[in-house]
Amino acid sequence: MTIRVAVNGYGTIGKRVADAVALQPDMKLVGVAKTRPSFEAGRAAAKGFKLYLSGGGALEPFHTAGIPIAGRIEDLVREVDVVVDAAPEKVGRENAKLYKEAGIRAIFQGGEKPDVAEVSFNALANYEAARGKHTVRVVSCNTTGLSRAASVLTSRWPIEYWQATIVRRAADPAESNRGPINGILPTFQLPSHHGPDVRTIFPQLPIATLAVVVPTTLMHVHVNHVQFTTPPRDAAEMLAGFRGTPRFRIFAPWEGVDGTPQVMEFARDRGVGHQDMMENVLWENGVRLDGQNAYFFQAIHQESIVVPENIDAIRAMFDLAPDAAHSIAITDRTLGIPAP
Amino acid sequence: MTIRVAVNGYGTIGKRVADAVALQPDMKLVGVAKTRPSFEAGRAAAKGFKLYLSGGGALEPFHTAGIPIAGRIEDLVREVDVVVDAAPEKVGRENAKLYKEAGIRAIFQGGEKPDVAEVSFNALANYEAARGKHTVRVVSCNTTGLSRAASVLTSRWPIEYWQATIVRRAADPAESNRGPINGILPTFQLPSHHGPDVRTIFPQLPIATLAVVVPTTLMHVHVNHVQFTTPPRDAAEMLAGFRGTPRFRIFAPWEGVDGTPQVMEFARDRGVGHQDMMENVLWENGVRLDGQNAYFFQAIHQESIVVPENIDAIRAMFDLAPDAAHSIAITDRTLGIPAP
Amino acid sequence: MTIRVAVNGYGTIGKRVADAVALQPDMKLVGVAKTRPSFEAGRAAAKGFKLYLSGGGALEPFHTAGIPIAGRIEDLVREVDVVVDAAPEKVGRENAKLYKEAGIRAIFQGGEKPDVAEVSFNALANYEAARGKHTVRVVSCNTTGLSRAASVLTSRWPIEYWQATIVRRAADPAESNRGPINGILPTFQLPSHHGPDVRTIFPQLPIATLAVVVPTTLMHVHVNHVQFTTPPRDAAEMLAGFRGTPRFRIFAPWEGVDGTPQVMEFARDRGVGHQDMMENVLWENGVRLDGQNAYFFQAIHQESIVVPENIDAIRAMFDLAPDAAHSIAITDRTLGIPAP
Amino acid sequence: MTIRVAVNGYGTIGKRVADAVALQPDMKLVGVAKTRPSFEAGRAAAKGFKLYLSGGGALEPFHTAGIPIAGRIEDLVREVDVVVDAAPEKVGRENAKLYKEAGIRAIFQGGEKPDVAEVSFNALANYEAARGKHTVRVVSCNTTGLSRAASVLTSRWPIEYWQATIVRRAADPAESNRGPINGILPTFQLPSHHGPDVRTIFPQLPIATLAVVVPTTLMHVHVNHVQFTTPPRDAAEMLAGFRGTPRFRIFAPWEGVDGTPQVMEFARDRGVGHQDMMENVLWENGVRLDGQNAYFFQAIHQESIVVPENIDAIRAMFDLAPDAAHSIAITDRTLGIPAP
Repeated sequence: MTIRVAVNGYGTIGKRVADAVALQPDMKLVGVAKTRPSFEAGRAAAKGFKLYLSGGGALEPFHTAGIPIAGRIEDLVREVDVVVDAAPEKVGRENAKLYKEAGIRAIFQGGEKPDVAEVSFNALANYEAARGKHTVRVVSCNTTGLSRAASVLTSRWPIEYWQATIVRRAADPAESNRGPINGILPTFQLPSHHGPDVRTIFPQLPIATLAVVVPTTLMHVHVNHVQFTTPPRDAAEMLAGFRGTPRFRIFAPWEGVDGTPQVMEFARDRGVGHQDMMENVLWENGVRLDGQNAYFFQAIHQESIVVPENIDAIRAMFDLAPDAAHSIAITDRTLGIPAP
Repeated sequence: MTIRVAVNGYGTIGKRVADAVALQPDMKLVGVAKTRPSFEAGRAAAKGFKLYLSGGGALEPFHTAGIPIAGRIEDLVREVDVVVDAAPEKVGRENAKLYKEAGIRAIFQGGEKPDVAEVSFNALANYEAARGKHTVRVVSCNTTGLSRAASVLTSRWPIEYWQATIVRRAADPAESNRGPINGILPTFQLPSHHGPDVRTIFPQLPIATLAVVVPTTLMHVHVNHVQFTTPPRDAAEMLAGFRGTPRFRIFAPWEGVDGTPQVMEFARDRGVGHQDMMENVLWENGVRLDGQNAYFFQAIHQESIVVPENIDAIRAMFDLAPDAAHSIAITDRTLGIPAP
Repeated sequence: MTIRVAVNGYGTIGKRVADAVALQPDMKLVGVAKTRPSFEAGRAAAKGFKLYLSGGGALEPFHTAGIPIAGRIEDLVREVDVVVDAAPEKVGRENAKLYKEAGIRAIFQGGEKPDVAEVSFNALANYEAARGKHTVRVVSCNTTGLSRAASVLTSRWPIEYWQATIVRRAADPAESNRGPINGILPTFQLPSHHGPDVRTIFPQLPIATLAVVVPTTLMHVHVNHVQFTTPPRDAAEMLAGFRGTPRFRIFAPWEGVDGTPQVMEFARDRGVGHQDMMENVLWENGVRLDGQNAYFFQAIHQESIVVPENIDAIRAMFDLAPDAAHSIAITDRTLGIPAP
Repeated sequence: MTIRVAVNGYGTIGKRVADAVALQPDMKLVGVAKTRPSFEAGRAAAKGFKLYLSGGGALEPFHTAGIPIAGRIEDLVREVDVVVDAAPEKVGRENAKLYKEAGIRAIFQGGEKPDVAEVSFNALANYEAARGKHTVRVVSCNTTGLSRAASVLTSRWPIEYWQATIVRRAADPAESNRGPINGILPTFQLPSHHGPDVRTIFPQLPIATLAVVVPTTLMHVHVNHVQFTTPPRDAAEMLAGFRGTPRFRIFAPWEGVDGTPQVMEFARDRGVGHQDMMENVLWENGVRLDGQNAYFFQAIHQESIVVPENIDAIRAMFDLAPDAAHSIAITDRTLGIPAP
């Protein structure tokens, strides 16, 4: 069985999900939808992806650019089993009506409110919850990173309290109109929405999050303090838990990775995806256990971390794999993410 | 009684302390010491400060620059009662011998280890501990910020646990050779040294700190989560605690201060010191109380926050004021820091 | 005779011009107008400036903020002889009608097109052209910097050709929503508008300018290549030309000023204005003469360089000084800009 | 005939050249040399490259890291016909002795002085000059970019004068310890060394260059003003000249490429090399002709632009191709750089 997939919205997330779908043995990328031509539309055409006009888009600019258009999003949705909506925040909710009318299933991104879909999703955490569902919301990059870490921790060592500071990148690398250039902006929502969002996946998790925005484009960094009820024996045991789980990359001191600049350099050298780091990134010397208390940093690549989750969500919705482990294994092998 | 003061080291901290000393009714700035000429040495001369050669400095470059030199640091220390050492980290410890031989008292900065002096100091927290001492260490900018906040909190509402993430500026505004330009660098010391350093002032404080470095030059930001044993009634009571204490500035929403860029713009408009913000900066909508738990942001101006503390330290050492409140009142009035 | 002055628009330029007007012996600041409360409105009130509501502003937010409002801009214009319009780009042109109806004179900033006023103005270059005029446009920061340099050069050494690259700061220090954070943006206008704008002052100047935007907030830097018809004897003669002219600051190598970070640190230490650098900034080792060709860098503080020009413009319009030199001398002495 | 190649130095340039060599039909990568383990050494091992210890490196850290070492650089040079030296600046000159003793040919990078080799090289400009040579210096990134542009221009339209401002990136993406974070630093060498360096390739070129350093990591941007003796008919003819030449990429307005952030995003999407942009990057609306004068911007990816040049240099030295065009065609096809 091959699931026919459309991607609506071809920006940071959409272009990556489209590439990822195209690599799956059990899926077929039917087309992608975009409102305006751009170098990214040019790349899509060069790769042989069929382009459709989404939302308020006009044909004329695509003609001028010499990029063929196969139809409108309304045409595309008739050809597919599921659409991955990667439109800008809040537009997904608008699009939902179209998908419903077309009678197709839909995946939304974390920028939409949880009630846009039947379930919020993270592959490691609640794969089964999405099985057979018609609408699924893949949680945002930060929530995905926290949920993966929660999967490792909560299944092994009960947590009394988790406090995370989300140090957020202010813009994506290709966004040249967003600041600040020099300064730190607190997020005046205390605690921040990330904690409640993690609880759409782990309803009982005693986590509180706070956020600041800083002038960088590469990755978010989570500064975590976890107090366990029953702690790991030592940091090594904790590290082993992360290391044995898919979608974690632990850097050793000899690798010389001082922070996010070197993590992304590693990603560039590795060449997975669009120079992506789809794993949660931790450091061996960035995990410490002190009695009941654990401290750890993790870096989250906002552009790509949700990409494998979108793929697994499709597999769960259409019952294409016996369980999460099987789906994750296929996704990661095809995308080039090393197995644990 | 007028205390004769020298400042050894005329960089970010030293030049500010020198200006502050010159404004005090009970102190006299005898001279400042510097190793090399620079525009800052030129400003010192223009203000009429007497310059002395410190440490490894040579006369020749000052002659070339046309800046008069009154002598060497060895001469300067013979003319004063106390020296404020604002030399680069670890140089202060070396200088300590010179001060001791000269039989004068000395203040060191927080870059030195605590055992450089008899006591670590913060005016709000432990003014009395420095009274009559011969050597005092003014704790670093981040520790000063945390200690001030601790003074407010611990005296009113017992704390069960305090977790702070220190989001550190990577360089000062005039340091053009330090990075990163784009990226976040975790500090791989977990918990970070700031917690233990606060405990040189508050020995029992249950605080754990973690730190990251981000590409900005303006201010540090502390992301705080405090769990109280006996909490304030509400956020308003907590805010009132901060507001009623010297050296706190709480921004209201109507002031339009989104983060550190606007805080420093406020400082430029106000014109205190060298465009300084010597207060802990909080935001009305950046303080939240949720049962036993409080969340709050505070921004710390690394260049200036310790300046009034150095002044109060002198006053404590020489018994120039009946108590902390009197010393702080004089310092703040002369420096232009508004009273609560 | 004391000229009554209003400032409409109290942002980066307006707040500085207001302070500058208040320092003049022959002018009186009647009031400033602002649309919304902010910490800057708070500072204005604290300084005793009378605040008026400008344009689309509402009273309610000021009341909430506790900032007294003396009236509307329509009231303010009736009380003054001249208004300095420092409203955002293109709003000045709208405001022009109001000023005309009120029968008062007006100064506009360089963000407006030249035809907003009878003459475009730079004090060193064409003071006389503004004498007695009813409307004057003070050219923008970059054009002011180029015009000052042109005043020095063209009066001494005829120019064959001048090529300047304007390396522009992307945002002002307090603008936290503008990027890019990491990248360089060419200005796709070749040559850029700066050249033609300089020719509103020097109609025959053979200058071509190109511009790029870079991620910094402090200052612009001009990279100049001038080919002379009759060159200076040597770089020293050229430097002497700049040094002997008001509103130039030449840094010597011993001052240790590597670039704009240290220039602004100098400005902070000096404390003129809002820690401003109202002079064109050059470097001794940043001026080179090679036959007919001269190369020089100059840094331009976008926030403040036009402030003294606005003051001189008022003086020219109302015939308050016998000539440019007298007006400049008064302005610079009151503002704290050192005389040559 | 297959040329056996070593790469000594496995940083930004070395790792890219090694990958490029491994893709050539007429070359064999025998091994790469590195002083210390790092994630990059780990990637080299994962790709099956043989690692050798270079210069002052020790075995122990590699053993700890579990990275096999095949020998020392002294062993490696015995196994190859040519070494590409990509060691840090000035180390190449030291290494030259070793290569000479081993009787092998050597390529040096532009960080070394021109006299390190018999000839300075750029494939488009002077391929023939390197034919049969034993030592060749591939000029630096900025000089390569200027030389390519000069190849296009000088062969078609004689130049009277060329003035270029080099707006330099302050650090590479993975360098987290270099600044400035906020500011512009003029390069106090007027004109800058880039002009003379271009003349190692084009001895008669009347070019003068000036440089500033800005806080970005992505690319350099050249701001060019060329005065022709005999100009192109129009900008379209000039663009056609660039477009018809290998290693130029001209972005059209519809592609939405505002500056270097989007150029590098394009590179990431394209996936050539380490997400590299080995071409000179121009913009259709960033080229203007005005009588004898042309203005154009070009962006230069400092990390990768010299990579194809190193490959062509090997081919020239060993007479592996009939001419430049053939060598360039093979290099570009294997590396994934589109033909004109």
